[in-house]
Amino acid sequence: MKVNGTHYRSLWWNADDAVLEIIDQRSLPYAFITQPVRTMQDFADAIVEMRVRGAPLIGATAAYGMALAMAQDPSDANMDRAWDDLNATRPTAINLRWALNRCRAALQPLPIAQRADAALALAHAIADEDVEINRQIGEHGLQLIRDIAAHKPPGEPVRLLTHCNAGWIATVDWGTATSPMYHAHDAGIPLHIWVDETRPRNQGALTAWELGSHGVPHTYVTDNAGGHLMQHGLVDMVITGTDRTTRSGDVCNKIGTYLKALAAKDNGVPFYVALPSPTIDWTVSDGVAEIPIEERDARETTHIQGTRDDGSLGVVQVTPAGTPGGNPAFDVTPSRLVTGLITERGICEASAEGLAGLFPDMAVAAQ
Amino acid sequence: MKVNGTHYRSLWWNADDAVLEIIDQRSLPYAFITQPVRTMQDFADAIVEMRVRGAPLIGATAAYGMALAMAQDPSDANMDRAWDDLNATRPTAINLRWALNRCRAALQPLPIAQRADAALALAHAIADEDVEINRQIGEHGLQLIRDIAAHKPPGEPVRLLTHCNAGWIATVDWGTATSPMYHAHDAGIPLHIWVDETRPRNQGALTAWELGSHGVPHTYVTDNAGGHLMQHGLVDMVITGTDRTTRSGDVCNKIGTYLKALAAKDNGVPFYVALPSPTIDWTVSDGVAEIPIEERDARETTHIQGTRDDGSLGVVQVTPAGTPGGNPAFDVTPSRLVTGLITERGICEASAEGLAGLFPDMAVAAQ
Repeated sequence: MKVNGTHYRSLWWNADDAVLEIIDQRSLPYAFITQPVRTMQDFADAIVEMRVRGAPLIGATAAYGMALAMAQDPSDANMDRAWDDLNATRPTAINLRWALNRCRAALQPLPIAQRADAALALAHAIADEDVEINRQIGEHGLQLIRDIAAHKPPGEPVRLLTHCNAGWIATVDWGTATSPMYHAHDAGIPLHIWVDETRPRNQGALTAWELGSHGVPHTYVTDNAGGHLMQHGLVDMVITGTDRTTRSGDVCNKIGTYLKALAAKDNGVPFYVALPSPTIDWTVSDGVAEIPIEERDARETTHIQGTRDDGSLGVVQVTPAGTPGGNPAFDVTPSRLVTGLITERGICEASAEGLAGLFPDMAVAAQ
Repeated sequence: MKVNGTHYRSLWWNADDAVLEIIDQRSLPYAFITQPVRTMQDFADAIVEMRVRGAPLIGATAAYGMALAMAQDPSDANMDRAWDDLNATRPTAINLRWALNRCRAALQPLPIAQRADAALALAHAIADEDVEINRQIGEHGLQLIRDIAAHKPPGEPVRLLTHCNAGWIATVDWGTATSPMYHAHDAGIPLHIWVDETRPRNQGALTAWELGSHGVPHTYVTDNAGGHLMQHGLVDMVITGTDRTTRSGDVCNKIGTYLKALAAKDNGVPFYVALPSPTIDWTVSDGVAEIPIEERDARETTHIQGTRDDGSLGVVQVTPAGTPGGNPAFDVTPSRLVTGLITERGICEASAEGLAGLFPDMAVAAQ
């Protein structure tokens, strides 16, 4: 999407220098810094230090890392070494392993001399596939926004609320929850986005940065505000992302999503979740009962980072010294509260029938 | 309640020095500083600068201000001057005007020579009345907690969740929502309090400070966490305060209260609101439709205060420069989501019938 009027992906191939370029996301939303990734150590650092973040982006970065390894030394031994080194950067990131396995499976049968070119072509393909999935999510979601706009006086904005950052910087481009918004904005439909702060990590600030950079009107509000906004008819639709969707349509997403879904239900506001099909977990049905919720460092709740008056980064503690904090990082929104799921294949009901209808191949394969 | 093992009210009369003492609440929750209020200017500053805050506490402070004025010069002219000067400190604070009017009505008929003593006695009475109302709220709420404890294995804590700071430092003592908690703790019932952060002003940090000072076990969580905690059976009851309750039992309270009430309803968790009867607005019925919601400075959402590593106070901005913020300060929880109202006269259903049953005198007077 656009930053200062120029289109960017969250990573891109610089063909002149034959090098991958990334955005250093540690400096967002305060500064926009791009940088080349030149060595295998650079690749490992970029993932470990979370300069790149978000499952699809990490997977694509790893594929480019494998391409560099093959350009340097296309031997089987080096392929294994690259697999190990890259996989060790975020051992629990499923998309990382998936991308590395896909690279190895494609490259291993090839003659040594063809591996470098093939690896780079595959990295491009993996990045492009993510963009294409998100573009399709955006096209389907755009229809929902168009329908709302059609029932409003001309020029009146469609008001959407989103939680966390399911944005383009967590993917290669478009994002998931944001893709319908960018598509609608680019199609000339007036929008106004309510951006949830998303405590404790304030990812709403990233979403606000994205939307502001692309020129989409928005307002940053506390997580507490959404219910009030919906009570007063100020929200036409909620769209969030998800980290994991069960086969029955329960949605595990950033903590607080469930509260917004309850408010949407109570006020008759449509609540949609945008997801690429790889995030559907066909092995799980009851999200509340079956999905373990990560309890993160309590310091994330008691200490907050931001910029000081002089623009430098600083941290303040909002609680008295020694206050115990709790920090469940995700919650589960039961499918009964979800109006529909927006996927790359179309929109379906949040139910086993809805998902199996769109993805009969995957639903059967998981049985 | 207790601070470092010593019982404090949020204001108290120092008879030795014939001076009112207060807690400088601007330094909470980071430091506990008490200070005397010696001059009329001191009184005005204490209210204007929010060293004292919370409706009952402001009212009692103003009554002591009138007592000082009468000690200095008990003339009608000085009484009027004190009324004007004190009333101008927070012109929209209804409790401030109510206390000043009560003082003037009681003192004006008295001979000049009796006014100083009478004014001081009246200030004591106003402070004591607030303590007594909150004590009664605590006694009634204690029964609810006792009932929950009786159905648990011995020693297992009753887990309560609260939002914002309806605590003793916003009243003269006990607080409203916290009064049942302090009563239960003092009665030896094991408790664990989930303290909502309460963005954007983080009043949960004040509640955490209070509870920690009095020795009540608690955990500070983001506002987003409550729904997840209730889904997993970790909350036995919610108790909040309220700024204004309609005659039909709708509750206007700090933004985000409505989301917690929705989650409580969805999970079968009792949701109670503690209130002194003066906060019932008998002129209003439909809270969502009729109560205007204050939109506060957006800077409260984008900038956060806390302590730096060296203990000094600092502010950081969490959003990109120029991000527009929205800041509705309160929301309305419809009575259908409220299990009951805890008042100084007892507990009633959140309905016109419930409130009129407990307060027939007030309900009739308002018609």
